[in-house]
Amino acid sequence: MNHSVNDVSSAALRPSPDLLLIDCPDRRGLVHEVTGLVSRHGGNILENHEFVDRETGRFFMRTEFVGVAAPARVEREARELLPAPATVRIGRAGGHRVVVLVTREHHCLGELLLRHLHGELGATIEAVVANRPALGSLVGRFGLPFHLVSHEHRSRDAQEADLLEVLERYQPDYLVLAKYMRILSRGFLERYPGRIINIHHSFLPAFVGSNPYRQAFARGVKIIGATAHFVTPELDEGPIIAQAVVPVDHSHMPSAMAQAGRDVEKLVLARALGLVFEHRVFLNGNRTIVFE
Amino acid sequence: MNHSVNDVSSAALRPSPDLLLIDCPDRRGLVHEVTGLVSRHGGNILENHEFVDRETGRFFMRTEFVGVAAPARVEREARELLPAPATVRIGRAGGHRVVVLVTREHHCLGELLLRHLHGELGATIEAVVANRPALGSLVGRFGLPFHLVSHEHRSRDAQEADLLEVLERYQPDYLVLAKYMRILSRGFLERYPGRIINIHHSFLPAFVGSNPYRQAFARGVKIIGATAHFVTPELDEGPIIAQAVVPVDHSHMPSAMAQAGRDVEKLVLARALGLVFEHRVFLNGNRTIVFE
Amino acid sequence: MNHSVNDVSSAALRPSPDLLLIDCPDRRGLVHEVTGLVSRHGGNILENHEFVDRETGRFFMRTEFVGVAAPARVEREARELLPAPATVRIGRAGGHRVVVLVTREHHCLGELLLRHLHGELGATIEAVVANRPALGSLVGRFGLPFHLVSHEHRSRDAQEADLLEVLERYQPDYLVLAKYMRILSRGFLERYPGRIINIHHSFLPAFVGSNPYRQAFARGVKIIGATAHFVTPELDEGPIIAQAVVPVDHSHMPSAMAQAGRDVEKLVLARALGLVFEHRVFLNGNRTIVFE
Amino acid sequence: MNHSVNDVSSAALRPSPDLLLIDCPDRRGLVHEVTGLVSRHGGNILENHEFVDRETGRFFMRTEFVGVAAPARVEREARELLPAPATVRIGRAGGHRVVVLVTREHHCLGELLLRHLHGELGATIEAVVANRPALGSLVGRFGLPFHLVSHEHRSRDAQEADLLEVLERYQPDYLVLAKYMRILSRGFLERYPGRIINIHHSFLPAFVGSNPYRQAFARGVKIIGATAHFVTPELDEGPIIAQAVVPVDHSHMPSAMAQAGRDVEKLVLARALGLVFEHRVFLNGNRTIVFE
Repeated sequence: MNHSVNDVSSAALRPSPDLLLIDCPDRRGLVHEVTGLVSRHGGNILENHEFVDRETGRFFMRTEFVGVAAPARVEREARELLPAPATVRIGRAGGHRVVVLVTREHHCLGELLLRHLHGELGATIEAVVANRPALGSLVGRFGLPFHLVSHEHRSRDAQEADLLEVLERYQPDYLVLAKYMRILSRGFLERYPGRIINIHHSFLPAFVGSNPYRQAFARGVKIIGATAHFVTPELDEGPIIAQAVVPVDHSHMPSAMAQAGRDVEKLVLARALGLVFEHRVFLNGNRTIVFE
Repeated sequence: MNHSVNDVSSAALRPSPDLLLIDCPDRRGLVHEVTGLVSRHGGNILENHEFVDRETGRFFMRTEFVGVAAPARVEREARELLPAPATVRIGRAGGHRVVVLVTREHHCLGELLLRHLHGELGATIEAVVANRPALGSLVGRFGLPFHLVSHEHRSRDAQEADLLEVLERYQPDYLVLAKYMRILSRGFLERYPGRIINIHHSFLPAFVGSNPYRQAFARGVKIIGATAHFVTPELDEGPIIAQAVVPVDHSHMPSAMAQAGRDVEKLVLARALGLVFEHRVFLNGNRTIVFE
Repeated sequence: MNHSVNDVSSAALRPSPDLLLIDCPDRRGLVHEVTGLVSRHGGNILENHEFVDRETGRFFMRTEFVGVAAPARVEREARELLPAPATVRIGRAGGHRVVVLVTREHHCLGELLLRHLHGELGATIEAVVANRPALGSLVGRFGLPFHLVSHEHRSRDAQEADLLEVLERYQPDYLVLAKYMRILSRGFLERYPGRIINIHHSFLPAFVGSNPYRQAFARGVKIIGATAHFVTPELDEGPIIAQAVVPVDHSHMPSAMAQAGRDVEKLVLARALGLVFEHRVFLNGNRTIVFE
Repeated sequence: MNHSVNDVSSAALRPSPDLLLIDCPDRRGLVHEVTGLVSRHGGNILENHEFVDRETGRFFMRTEFVGVAAPARVEREARELLPAPATVRIGRAGGHRVVVLVTREHHCLGELLLRHLHGELGATIEAVVANRPALGSLVGRFGLPFHLVSHEHRSRDAQEADLLEVLERYQPDYLVLAKYMRILSRGFLERYPGRIINIHHSFLPAFVGSNPYRQAFARGVKIIGATAHFVTPELDEGPIIAQAVVPVDHSHMPSAMAQAGRDVEKLVLARALGLVFEHRVFLNGNRTIVFE
């Protein structure tokens, strides 16, 4: 039973590498040009992923490197080098500012709070915002700010205005909808393009409407899943980041199905956030490219 | 690398136990009454499953027993004993007559033919019927009858009439749609109530319309699944027997997704058939009870 | 995104059913006799599982029932009825007293604390006992007693004596080793026969010795698993309650493998505890019978 | 039910791209240099994977490209360019010559024969060689050569000499041990270094000795797995290519566990072969790098 995980902590001491993140039209020699640029600035590439979407002709690349004194210059030169329209970013894993939105289900929030406490989330939770008071006590145990922005007896516009005001204080890089049970307006979503991540249960077949676990039970599904995705105004469900499933059977009452669903939801959300916070996820139209 | 599977063959030599299969309204003491009935006829119960659907108040039971000289008398007495409306059957695992319907995809048919050849299907394939000629050569390798009932230049009614004529010759207990790509009419389905099993791919989220692998690719799904189900006229997809999934990612072209889908389809179909042929699957409205 | 889980809370309001738990030699008619006994006392059986180990001839049964005024009388009469040597127990899901033993890894403990806080563990955590101080702060956030019983500069006997003294205060029904990294003596284990549950990582193939994640990495395993089991003095690893796995690949550094391992460990442990606390797990020699 | 898989067939019509496969010591700028070399020869890179093993300092790269008139010149120049000791190969997916070795279990062989028949194996099965006659009839159905090289009443050396003589006729690129139940000598294995692939069942925990399914049953494992690996003389089990598992429970008799094991074995073997035949698997000491 006695094992050591020293390798984990020693890994944590290494300086986090720089990341060059590229999304541009494909053309011959791009990998060569980009890696050459990193090399000329003295960089040593630790990990490199690229992918060409042959249908749209877009080129995606994520390069992890160390040893470059001024990564911002790499970014600027890459912009000059690459065919337009290109998105070029320099980043580092971690360091993101996150606000978590919840309603009253605790499982996803609890998972995020525990990982955050132990430095395993890969981001800083600046605050938790809820439209119901139930989870305030849980958040308090972890010493984080909790804001209640109730939706009751108010228009959606009014509630969202208050929500935006709270968010403004924290300047989050990402909003995480950890079972936030309100539909956000198009106007709200457009404030955080590609920066809002949601988790929801998924079924085979899919169910529309309220109480899906009851519907899944009534239909006798054998599998319950969860999908973490970016939220977009255009789609009922935006680009998918991660999915997983668990088996269930006829002896699972709706409540047991819901428990199985909660377990898979929280792990899929945590996994999706880990990928996003390490800049491993690129948006590609309605799809994602995930460089695991 | 050297291991023996003698236990498998010795298990095959034992006489197959009798099965008592019950579906009736629940009332206090049913398990007691039914097991008492089996005991009074000298039966020894090897395995027993029962389930009460608390919502509908239906009671389901599957009892495996040996040592009863006249199982048909157990069946008759159970009918007298149980509250109406009851379905009572005596059965044995295996011994079913099956006709497989296909179009041109080979993966599910190949799986069934191999299992059948080695006595692992749990049923006898009487014939394969196709609406296209492509799979005739594969069926021929296994020495089974192959019938082509083309749908081309014909009305659905005319084609189904010919299909029924062919099926009439074989008196199948079950029809297996192993990637049969024609929609069967309500009239046809009602000839084989609860006796037609289909396999199809499933996605999270679900896709409607043609070329779902292309749609799944366009949407960037991370999981591809398969569902084996009974075919009913009322539902686009009837009561689910078995489901499974495999992970995919953005580097899977539609063709690779299709390969992954084929692999999971054939195993899910084989597994569902094994459950049905051992009388482990009960229909319960739009759901199944699966006594694994 | 808007769904209700009202069914969960309404389910929680129902009175928890009684459980009759039997382990005895098999003989003809046992299911009949036991269900008859429950019926005669006015009980209505909600769920019933039985299993006969054909090799050892042992009979196992778990019966969930409501409506019996004096369940203890059912227990007494069952003892008289059943062939010896029989173990007969009356129980209820939940209500167990648990002490959790930890060292310094937080993932399993955090999972248990969160479930406990929200009433989803199915047992009461009376205290957490550790041989290192690291997790005291986490336990404090949840307002539970934390005891440090250090092993440093002490003999195992001395440390275990102190451990037993602490445990004595809480009279736990079960000890949960949530990454407790000390080997417990035979004498200690015999104080809690069948009542100590451990979680550990599992690999295909298995690795012996220290730092298994490093070994797994060096060997290039593609799957990492976790096993929850009862702890016994006879076996390096006692009867298995639950197992699960997650896929990994060559790009997983030992630290990433360890993270994947932690995620699967905590869910497998929570799942195993749920099964044990609902009395769904029977010991059968070196195996378990799990009535899911 | 009606869907088209036209994309599969159209994909098959494209000319198969060339592959450049590199294994050499890491140094700064390698990706840049290699991609530059491909570009200078007019190549367009479709897919590129590289991986640096930071512990051993080895660099692995797989580059898929089209448009180069003389790929052999790319290979030669890459050899001159790269730091020694380097392995540089030019290849194409598919086209391998394979001999399958079997004993008497049919499930893996059947899977390979079906895929081969439909052009989905990614290699040509030149012949099947067995040490028992049982599978000759199955092979005959698929019209392939079957050779019986019995081990009975003969020394291992004598049997292996005959085996080598048969293999000599077919000049196989790979030997696939599809449940070949003889241990091959070191001398034999050294004739096909990195070119012999085996499949075997895997358990958590692992079992040594005969009849592992019986042992797994006796131990109550909840998961059964399969591992496809290269065969090496040094290790009881060589570098792992692919692994998968399926859940089992206490109601699985050893024969049902064996059936579950067979299902997972055949899919894992087929998947591993697909990876190998597309040159996606690199040997890295006792590990593999798998560029999926």
